[in-house]
Amino acid sequence: MPLYTESEAMSSTPPRARDENTALTRAVHAPRIAIEAVSPALDDGRFAAKATVGEPVRVSATIFADGHDVLAAEIGWIDDQGIKRRAPMQLARPLGLDRWEGHFTPDRVGRHVFYIEAWWDVFETYRYELSKKHAASVPIALELEEGRLLLERAAARAEAGLAQGLAKCLDALAQATDQGAQVALLLEGETARLMHEADSRPHLSRTQADYPLEVERLAARFASWYELFPRSQTPDPARHGTFDDVQRRLPLIRDMGFDVLYFPPIHPIGRKHRKGPNNSLEAGPTDPGSPYAIGSPEGGHEAIHPELGSREDFRALVRAAADHGLEIALDFAIQCSPDHPWLAEHPGWFSWRPDGTIRYAENPPKKYQDIVNVDFYADEAVPGLWLALLEVVQGWVDEGVRIFRVDNPHTKPLPFWEWLIQEIRARDPGVMFLAEAFTRPPMMLRLGKVGFSQSYTYFTWRHTKAELTAYFSELDASPMREGYRPNFFVNTPDINPYFLQTSGRSGFLQRAALAALGSGLWGMYSGFELCESAPVPGKEEYLDSEKYEIRPRDYQASGNISLEIAELNRIRRENPALQTHLGIRFHTIESERLLLFSKATESRANVVLVAINLDPFAAHEAAFALPFELFELDDGATLFGEELMSGTRVRWQGRWQSLRLEPARPFAVWRLRPENAP
Amino acid sequence: MPLYTESEAMSSTPPRARDENTALTRAVHAPRIAIEAVSPALDDGRFAAKATVGEPVRVSATIFADGHDVLAAEIGWIDDQGIKRRAPMQLARPLGLDRWEGHFTPDRVGRHVFYIEAWWDVFETYRYELSKKHAASVPIALELEEGRLLLERAAARAEAGLAQGLAKCLDALAQATDQGAQVALLLEGETARLMHEADSRPHLSRTQADYPLEVERLAARFASWYELFPRSQTPDPARHGTFDDVQRRLPLIRDMGFDVLYFPPIHPIGRKHRKGPNNSLEAGPTDPGSPYAIGSPEGGHEAIHPELGSREDFRALVRAAADHGLEIALDFAIQCSPDHPWLAEHPGWFSWRPDGTIRYAENPPKKYQDIVNVDFYADEAVPGLWLALLEVVQGWVDEGVRIFRVDNPHTKPLPFWEWLIQEIRARDPGVMFLAEAFTRPPMMLRLGKVGFSQSYTYFTWRHTKAELTAYFSELDASPMREGYRPNFFVNTPDINPYFLQTSGRSGFLQRAALAALGSGLWGMYSGFELCESAPVPGKEEYLDSEKYEIRPRDYQASGNISLEIAELNRIRRENPALQTHLGIRFHTIESERLLLFSKATESRANVVLVAINLDPFAAHEAAFALPFELFELDDGATLFGEELMSGTRVRWQGRWQSLRLEPARPFAVWRLRPENAP
Repeated sequence: MPLYTESEAMSSTPPRARDENTALTRAVHAPRIAIEAVSPALDDGRFAAKATVGEPVRVSATIFADGHDVLAAEIGWIDDQGIKRRAPMQLARPLGLDRWEGHFTPDRVGRHVFYIEAWWDVFETYRYELSKKHAASVPIALELEEGRLLLERAAARAEAGLAQGLAKCLDALAQATDQGAQVALLLEGETARLMHEADSRPHLSRTQADYPLEVERLAARFASWYELFPRSQTPDPARHGTFDDVQRRLPLIRDMGFDVLYFPPIHPIGRKHRKGPNNSLEAGPTDPGSPYAIGSPEGGHEAIHPELGSREDFRALVRAAADHGLEIALDFAIQCSPDHPWLAEHPGWFSWRPDGTIRYAENPPKKYQDIVNVDFYADEAVPGLWLALLEVVQGWVDEGVRIFRVDNPHTKPLPFWEWLIQEIRARDPGVMFLAEAFTRPPMMLRLGKVGFSQSYTYFTWRHTKAELTAYFSELDASPMREGYRPNFFVNTPDINPYFLQTSGRSGFLQRAALAALGSGLWGMYSGFELCESAPVPGKEEYLDSEKYEIRPRDYQASGNISLEIAELNRIRRENPALQTHLGIRFHTIESERLLLFSKATESRANVVLVAINLDPFAAHEAAFALPFELFELDDGATLFGEELMSGTRVRWQGRWQSLRLEPARPFAVWRLRPENAP
Repeated sequence: MPLYTESEAMSSTPPRARDENTALTRAVHAPRIAIEAVSPALDDGRFAAKATVGEPVRVSATIFADGHDVLAAEIGWIDDQGIKRRAPMQLARPLGLDRWEGHFTPDRVGRHVFYIEAWWDVFETYRYELSKKHAASVPIALELEEGRLLLERAAARAEAGLAQGLAKCLDALAQATDQGAQVALLLEGETARLMHEADSRPHLSRTQADYPLEVERLAARFASWYELFPRSQTPDPARHGTFDDVQRRLPLIRDMGFDVLYFPPIHPIGRKHRKGPNNSLEAGPTDPGSPYAIGSPEGGHEAIHPELGSREDFRALVRAAADHGLEIALDFAIQCSPDHPWLAEHPGWFSWRPDGTIRYAENPPKKYQDIVNVDFYADEAVPGLWLALLEVVQGWVDEGVRIFRVDNPHTKPLPFWEWLIQEIRARDPGVMFLAEAFTRPPMMLRLGKVGFSQSYTYFTWRHTKAELTAYFSELDASPMREGYRPNFFVNTPDINPYFLQTSGRSGFLQRAALAALGSGLWGMYSGFELCESAPVPGKEEYLDSEKYEIRPRDYQASGNISLEIAELNRIRRENPALQTHLGIRFHTIESERLLLFSKATESRANVVLVAINLDPFAAHEAAFALPFELFELDDGATLFGEELMSGTRVRWQGRWQSLRLEPARPFAVWRLRPENAP
């Protein structure tokens, strides 16, 4: 065993200058109370945790100190206006873990911060010891005198009103003749309240950092998205759809219960290397091209594709949408077509190759020649490009757009997003960004940390009971719950899920129910309600993809599921428990093809139970356990449910029941009540 | 649904001054690469993680950036002398999680720090794309030119030797006639090595903080402790034992394989309120009192109890112990007897009551009148008391004592410990502190974080298979593994475990094996080897406790387990896998009363399998699974084992085997080898 040798010890005086007096001064002034594991927090306060306005923020921390004295703790929170408020904390159960909790409810959108303070609660410590000694019948004359002195000193330092109250206590104490009466006075709640008020808070310790909270409007966690290509809102593929055409569809979209209407890019589309139908490299003269090939002589990211209408038409659409309870979300896709004005105006914002040609995105042997990417760190791009992009977003905010779906944010620098989102939200904290990143898990979360309000997810590729349970649970656990709000899209123009290609209508109903009932945020791309699923063979792509063509649709086509979607959205609006992905609980149901979960508001005023058949081809029936624990019911008790799609009411006697779900209506959703409510 | 209203948006301009230009400047210079979840770290670098000299520190982090370019990462570490070194990091499996790892081996005791740097690996990105395009047979003339330019630029900025190597590459490239040869040159390992050397490290990002590491000597994680009361080292209870008596016992203690010899306080014992036998309130004239009642007219914490011997005797004992391979550990118990000189010299260091009496420790109705506690934050105690305590410890360090067992550190302020330990270790980083805290989990860990090298544990109260498995696993998981080194004491003068009061000799063997084989650190208080267990009825206290009496013992008494203890300590010395509590793996054995675990060095050069019968009253037999996975063996393979207590060799054919353990020898420990080694 190589023991530590003397020569090692001798030579190891550390080289860095160590000032012993400074170390001592720092130590005697260091916080005596440890405050650890603060929640909600992301990377211990480096990033803002997510919250929504009007929703309580539950704060907890592990708080402890040397010795056995009683501690007290409080949350301090500062809203976006700099107004400070306080909220009490209590020791949480189980008590042995030194966990404290409290809550406050932000009433404004914007960046808030909170911190925690803890101190020695001298009077509570005194009360605890006095009551213990009193109960043990040991002599307590000296303790009573100590209590009197505590009150006296508190009265001396307290402001007038409080001092008066304490003086009254002291008078009463002086007049109490026997020890029992004195003890009662010292232990009574009113005395404790006054002493808490007058507390000098010895050994006050505060969290080292303030913990930021990004408080957003409700739509950040509860919204139903509908995506469409404005150019396809035409009965005739030869006639380009317009913003006015979109206006005519608003009532139908609202009838389905959506509240966000999202468009792929609406900017001028490049001509050079324009893609033809089905992503072919050669476009015909009438092919409209991909809206993601942004920029042409008509303008770039700030401009509107002329065939969609004028700026005034766009403004009219934004107003009309608002009148229908719909908010417009735009796409923010930073790449450029080779015809984008920036290439000529700012060649220094792009990468060039040794032969003077521009560098295209590539995935050998594929080459994406209809778009080029900017280079954020090129000499000339810093900071010109950054400011130009900020101006683009701000320009659309000025037009009333307050939601942006960002294309591939994970291929642009994280510091850029952190800066851009903070700049925009400093001007209007109601603006939100949805991250369309499908990449490795750490980046998915990090985008949420740097400021994206919502994110696309892996939901599209989670199908089995085990996969769904694990994924929904992961989203509900730290650090995802603090930093990442999942928007469950059932399909997108880029994703024609393999599952839906063969599942038929039942699969569409199943996925809509999983998304709409699984998360406060869900979305669909038009065609889903028609159960469209024809693929490019062997691929997760739509055949004759709308990305490259104008695709009129008959939205009344038979077999559509618009009515079911409307019902799901109605149920979401009527049940607060469904307006978040948080707090999901999975329950036992004895079939691998049936999924059973519940969601509940904290007060249990709204409790919803969801059952879904994951097999689109067969009915399944199984025994299941009702979530009696949510209502603290015994196994033999009665529970009432109202099935919210059909309105059917059921009275369950006993915890174990069974259910059957047919492929034709592969889900059921009950509102649960312990009593038979109206 | 209360949607966010316009008026809210208007009024929410944040009050804090926001300088847009500063925000932009900061953003463009912010680290482009995210480095998250660095390990080993405690509270993200607020506290030093634990390490030992000569043992590799495995560093890992989640590292990622926007886009698809290849990254490179490196550990930088700075030892206690300020010398910087570097170690490479690699992407870890599974690859999709962006986890990187590397390691370095501190070769000095003291405070080290490490950090991580990551950057864009331009040439590796180039190689990846070139090889992909080459394989896809697309035109690559331009790519070859780009490669040449990368080399040329690197040669221009590299120092002479490296530039020469790159110039050679460029020459070879110029002379290569066909593209295949050029590709081969650009992809070859030597070119990559040179380019890695010459890398300009664009977008270099570094962890925000340096991560401290407290590197200690091996005894911080691997040591066997033996505790005795020097005053009891006498054949005659009427004659007080001395340091010279202890010297005579050294060979026996060393024969049992211990390397740390720990004494309860050796300071003068107070007379006032001295405790008598069995913690009685009245001591007789010849009763020696509790050594924890520190201080008398003969001196305080700096002094030696006269009956134990002189300072010279103590020095002689320290030297003699060292000659026997034993290190002396002293007790550091901050409380004072009412006779401690500090009470008269520094009354301002203590708490006084309204009637002028001193405040005793109490647990109503109990009152501990033989000791009083100092008040660390009393006006006069800051900083006089703090400095006096530092001086006490430094005084014993000057006498050659480099291990301190600290009594009840959780009732003294955390900032005091953090300061004191750093001050002492700044002078001699070989000094170690063992925390004797039995309190709630957050404090137990925090004491390790603020600098205690080792800690007492809950081991004494973990008995069942489930309890032991859960507890050993918790100690091996973050954050315990970084901050808390468990010293498994099987008993102490304060803890006569209920289990041992009835278990008989088998229980003592079982607990010794669990402690000695479960952790790199274990300890026993003398009497354990004699299976002493007579309790104060109904309590976890020893009857006629040595804390209040002189207790001579016959260490050769029949039924003693000294030989088994010696064997356990020998096995620990011979098997590096057993010299830490980390890396424990539990294996299936089909009995609730049998525990099976293994430990292995990273290279698998040393693999040990331990089986323990948890039932002291009956033999148990059960099938078990050999840890074939450690050697990547198929289920039908052969494994060889040498039982290290008996020397018996066994050849196991197939993964599933069975074993039987009798109460008389309730454990077995095999060294495993995949081949029949000598």
